[in-house]
Amino acid sequence: MTSSPAPSGSHHNFYADYVIQYSYADADPSNASDELELLLRKLWEVGLQAEVRPGEDSNLLVFVRASRNKSLQRAIYQSRIRDWLHGVRSSEPEDESSAEPQTESERLRIINHMITLPRDLGGAGITPKHGHWKNVIAVFPLHDEEKNKEYLTDWSKKTFLSEEDLDQIRDKFGESVGFYFAFLQSYFRFLLFPAAFGFSSWLLLGSFSIIYTIVNCLWGIIFIEYWKRQEEDLSCRWQTKGVSIVRIKRREFKPEREVQDQITGETRGVFPTTTRLQRQLLQVPFALVSTVALGAIIATCFAIEIFISEVYTGPLKSYLCFIPTILLSALIPTMSGVLVSVATKLNDYENYETQTAYDTALTQKVFVINFITSYLPIFLTAFVYIPFASLIVPHLDVFHLTVRPFVSKEEATTHDNFSIDPDRLRKQVIYFTVTAQVVGFATETILPFVKQRFARQYKEYKKKKTGRTNTGLEDDSHNTPKSSYDDHEDEVQFLTRVRKEADRDDYNVTDDLREMCIQFGYLALFSPVWPLVPVSFLVNNWIELRSDFFKIIIECKRPSPIRADTIGPWLDTLGFLSWVGSITSAALVYMFNTSTDGGPNGEPSAIKGWALLLAIFFSEHLYLIVRYVVHTTMSKFMPHNVRREKTEQYMIRKRYLESTLGARSSDEEEEVTEKDQSMEISDITRKTLEDDARAWTKHDTDPEERFWMRQKGWRESAQVAHSIIKSQADEEGKKEQ
Amino acid sequence: MTSSPAPSGSHHNFYADYVIQYSYADADPSNASDELELLLRKLWEVGLQAEVRPGEDSNLLVFVRASRNKSLQRAIYQSRIRDWLHGVRSSEPEDESSAEPQTESERLRIINHMITLPRDLGGAGITPKHGHWKNVIAVFPLHDEEKNKEYLTDWSKKTFLSEEDLDQIRDKFGESVGFYFAFLQSYFRFLLFPAAFGFSSWLLLGSFSIIYTIVNCLWGIIFIEYWKRQEEDLSCRWQTKGVSIVRIKRREFKPEREVQDQITGETRGVFPTTTRLQRQLLQVPFALVSTVALGAIIATCFAIEIFISEVYTGPLKSYLCFIPTILLSALIPTMSGVLVSVATKLNDYENYETQTAYDTALTQKVFVINFITSYLPIFLTAFVYIPFASLIVPHLDVFHLTVRPFVSKEEATTHDNFSIDPDRLRKQVIYFTVTAQVVGFATETILPFVKQRFARQYKEYKKKKTGRTNTGLEDDSHNTPKSSYDDHEDEVQFLTRVRKEADRDDYNVTDDLREMCIQFGYLALFSPVWPLVPVSFLVNNWIELRSDFFKIIIECKRPSPIRADTIGPWLDTLGFLSWVGSITSAALVYMFNTSTDGGPNGEPSAIKGWALLLAIFFSEHLYLIVRYVVHTTMSKFMPHNVRREKTEQYMIRKRYLESTLGARSSDEEEEVTEKDQSMEISDITRKTLEDDARAWTKHDTDPEERFWMRQKGWRESAQVAHSIIKSQADEEGKKEQ
Repeated sequence: MTSSPAPSGSHHNFYADYVIQYSYADADPSNASDELELLLRKLWEVGLQAEVRPGEDSNLLVFVRASRNKSLQRAIYQSRIRDWLHGVRSSEPEDESSAEPQTESERLRIINHMITLPRDLGGAGITPKHGHWKNVIAVFPLHDEEKNKEYLTDWSKKTFLSEEDLDQIRDKFGESVGFYFAFLQSYFRFLLFPAAFGFSSWLLLGSFSIIYTIVNCLWGIIFIEYWKRQEEDLSCRWQTKGVSIVRIKRREFKPEREVQDQITGETRGVFPTTTRLQRQLLQVPFALVSTVALGAIIATCFAIEIFISEVYTGPLKSYLCFIPTILLSALIPTMSGVLVSVATKLNDYENYETQTAYDTALTQKVFVINFITSYLPIFLTAFVYIPFASLIVPHLDVFHLTVRPFVSKEEATTHDNFSIDPDRLRKQVIYFTVTAQVVGFATETILPFVKQRFARQYKEYKKKKTGRTNTGLEDDSHNTPKSSYDDHEDEVQFLTRVRKEADRDDYNVTDDLREMCIQFGYLALFSPVWPLVPVSFLVNNWIELRSDFFKIIIECKRPSPIRADTIGPWLDTLGFLSWVGSITSAALVYMFNTSTDGGPNGEPSAIKGWALLLAIFFSEHLYLIVRYVVHTTMSKFMPHNVRREKTEQYMIRKRYLESTLGARSSDEEEEVTEKDQSMEISDITRKTLEDDARAWTKHDTDPEERFWMRQKGWRESAQVAHSIIKSQADEEGKKEQ
Repeated sequence: MTSSPAPSGSHHNFYADYVIQYSYADADPSNASDELELLLRKLWEVGLQAEVRPGEDSNLLVFVRASRNKSLQRAIYQSRIRDWLHGVRSSEPEDESSAEPQTESERLRIINHMITLPRDLGGAGITPKHGHWKNVIAVFPLHDEEKNKEYLTDWSKKTFLSEEDLDQIRDKFGESVGFYFAFLQSYFRFLLFPAAFGFSSWLLLGSFSIIYTIVNCLWGIIFIEYWKRQEEDLSCRWQTKGVSIVRIKRREFKPEREVQDQITGETRGVFPTTTRLQRQLLQVPFALVSTVALGAIIATCFAIEIFISEVYTGPLKSYLCFIPTILLSALIPTMSGVLVSVATKLNDYENYETQTAYDTALTQKVFVINFITSYLPIFLTAFVYIPFASLIVPHLDVFHLTVRPFVSKEEATTHDNFSIDPDRLRKQVIYFTVTAQVVGFATETILPFVKQRFARQYKEYKKKKTGRTNTGLEDDSHNTPKSSYDDHEDEVQFLTRVRKEADRDDYNVTDDLREMCIQFGYLALFSPVWPLVPVSFLVNNWIELRSDFFKIIIECKRPSPIRADTIGPWLDTLGFLSWVGSITSAALVYMFNTSTDGGPNGEPSAIKGWALLLAIFFSEHLYLIVRYVVHTTMSKFMPHNVRREKTEQYMIRKRYLESTLGARSSDEEEEVTEKDQSMEISDITRKTLEDDARAWTKHDTDPEERFWMRQKGWRESAQVAHSIIKSQADEEGKKEQ
């Protein structure tokens, strides 16, 4: 039982690989003790060492360490065998005894599997927050604080992350987080061009420039195709290509019936696809309800806003104009929250078999909500308010009636000389692409940090009140705080830190990816309105990358490494947004471009339906053609790591084939010489002819077999051929004479 | 050297697997003899038996037979190993000595490889019509006449081919021909519905019905998605899934430079992708030139036709109206031929590495030409002539001037009261979907058959004149014809047949597939004009399937089996045509539907641009959404054979995993008991605590290691956990008191 060498640099984590957080607050003490005993026994059975320490708030912290090298090696070997059988690895893994985790994330992933996988797959079957283990509230690895700080200071000094930096993120937090940072990095790098181009066109061409729009669309196509290549490249570099095939059933999956497979003879739970499809039909009413509910809120607030800011001239206007903003900020998050919870219920009801399928389906549903809340306001302004304002605004009379008491008679007719605010669209785009991004950053990063601080201070305060003393208030100062838990003095500092980490939130990479995709949407859909959009995003994303890393290391538990070979459904979302962008951009440019003579120049009355539709038709199809061309062109170039993997596969095949071909040619050689000798003897002589005749009578008189016996060996055939050719030549010679 | 058992039912082929046709007409007799000697030697070296017989017209026929069982087995084994390494087979092939061809087509394919593959891949390197072997004009297997006749009579009696029939086609002619017939069969079966629906709507709804159009588009989507599934299913059934990966370099590929691979150390010919892309840019001018050249011819003939039939009223009208038809039939094939040869040159210049890539690229180029010649005439009528006739026809005056001498003064003004022929569109569609199909059938099947007969009779006649006698005129009568070649009397009949087969054309499956795709195009693009289109195609395709089979077995050499897992680039073509169909159908229905009140009812002047474009916009996007939904829905259902293959793969994985897991659990068991005993001893006693203390002092005083030594074994941890929980419970109990 030798203890395995811990990965370098994690000494200050006391060699602990994982911490299991167990809450006995809601459990009967004796039950809790039994459960813990079972937990510890199970961990020990799969070969993990455990130590128990008290945690905060009726929590126990079970420190887990893969000390038995053999068990870990076996788990690694099994995981690799599984990968190989599913085609994720191209070569058969080496012997079990030489299996070592290649990266920290592989080690952590394997240990996580050892803890959470069911017994028949070789794990301890501990499922946090689920089933028997509902009191296990978290299973998480510990942050590598030194390295984290090092990275953060390092990155704050440079503009681009190098490939090695991404590798380090992947080593620490796993591939799925690695892919997010790689995407963010690629996106940031790609933004440099539209930012520079956008800035120049803002100076030289103004808004709604045709050139800027074309360049922007083209940039979107190239970026998405580039990212697809990049994804493939990274998945080869990180050896996770095709990893989504190796899927484990969701624990929440409820089979409709048990079916015995005729071939394998196994009984397995089956959920019919047709039933799931029927359930998925509920997505249609869901999408409609979401659109109507959110659309109604947004449109109403929008109408009120227009009414107040542009029609209403009564008293309190400066205060009233906050009403729509307040309404929006109150109603939209509430409604979104309700809809997201409905979406989650729907998704649970659809009963997916694997986590990947579940996540993809949920992402798609939530995207509908995001799409409406993010882009509908601008859509309303651009395609409803501006073209149809003169038709719609008079109907805001409905409100007029309610507001009438405050409005003087003369002012009641203002809507007749109402004029459209042409700057509203730009203001709105600026709001969504600058203000909202800053607000988002604050609510996402700063607010939780402040909240955490306060929560901690409040806790300390409460503890102090209950008579305990704890100097842990000085969070980041490295003097050893005295423990309130009778901790051994060596461990006080470590345990204090672990207790804090246990208190943090889980990190969710999907939310961060969503944010980036929605951001990309503004760029694809509306950036012709204000060409500085990419500049704003460029600045934002430089900060975003660092702040997201900060969020992971300071505000969240360290995520368990999850393998991935893609950013998942978001890739399709990007493609979809870019496509819709080709439509909206064309429409915007046609309607608001002021440089062309024929166009409406932003005059709503001058918009011609057929011209608008023709512009959209051409733009969209041009987009599709260009996308096809870019896609086929880029698919011809193989990324570096893909090529390397292909070559490796080729080498494996070649070695294998050579071993069979090599055996062949040596065999062949022998045979040839042997035959050649027999050949020499069998030159046509009277004797052989007689032999032939005898052989024929001996044989059955099968004419088919006789056909093959007329010429003995290739030399005789060649002689026959020669004689045929010669006779023909002779004949021709005769004719010519 | 035992002779392998020949596949059943091919006795009348004298066990011959392949016939190599060698022409010594252009060669020097001694050179020819040398070449033949080399040929025979090479064949013998790879383990093939050969017999030489004279052929017609200075040809030699080399009969080839895989008589050495061992060589064939080795070739089969090697091919299977290669498949396995490339992932085409899911299981490692069994031992070499038990390798038997599973089907006739596998046997023939392997023997073909033995003949044609280069030496380093284990073949004889005989490359027909290429390089050193330019006098080898064909390598072909012999038809299995009995079976062929059996199938033909069998199929003429039934409506649908069964899966077994398709399997038999595949066994005889290989997967690529099998896929064509499977496609034709699926297409025919699917046509039943639109034929029935089209017939009813022709009776009840008339032309340009919205309902018919929607159903037709939906049918197209479902058919294409169904075929994709079907293709996957068949490729699993025929075990060719992913076979396009196992590709062999084209012999015509010219590398730009030799590069030594850094990893493999091999030198291989490289042709840079960028150079190829640059060359591919020539496709753009090619497409433009094709469009302009063919478009000009078609438009001109069209203009002449309209002028003569609708404007011109002078003498000889009944004769003159044939001019455009004659011009078209003369010019279009000539121009197409020129363009196809240009396309082939372009394709050669693009220098593809594999045959698949080459074929795909050529197919795409030729499709551009096909698209224009097939659909442009109808496009012109529907979207140029009918809407704009009143604008364009007056400009046909250009011709008027030249025709003036024949036209009397009064009639010169007829174009003023010119009226559009509303029936022209329907007539044209009927022409292309009925007449042209019949004409195509005649030129494709009947004409070559008649031509072949005449050519043969002419040959016999010539031979008779040169003094030889041959009674082979009675082609299908089975009396033994006397030979003119001193054939052995057993072989006369066989050799006469083989000589005839050697004289036939090669079969090209691409042409037949193209015909079907173009036909599908008429259905997708224009069938709302005349809802009987699918009825016509249904009838046509019943005959087509049989006549194509007839063509293969009577008019062509038996094709060498080629593996395939798809119908190739034609699948994309179908998708493209169906998409374009959603646009044209919407436009046609909007323009010509007479039932709606708002529409133009076929009145050109009433067509509103914005309404037309809006109809197209909605139709196209509805199409795309429906296609997405149908695609995702159908992808949820796994075809039968795919499921079976997945299960087999699963079983292989399971067996492998179990073998490692099994080893594991038995190991584990031992370990557990062993540990358990040590556990019992290590219950906390004063002694063990003392031991611990001693162990610590012995150990280095690493606090990290000490952390893990405080609790010995899981039982002690459980006790600690219990005490923590208990103390907390006690405390809470105290507080509550």
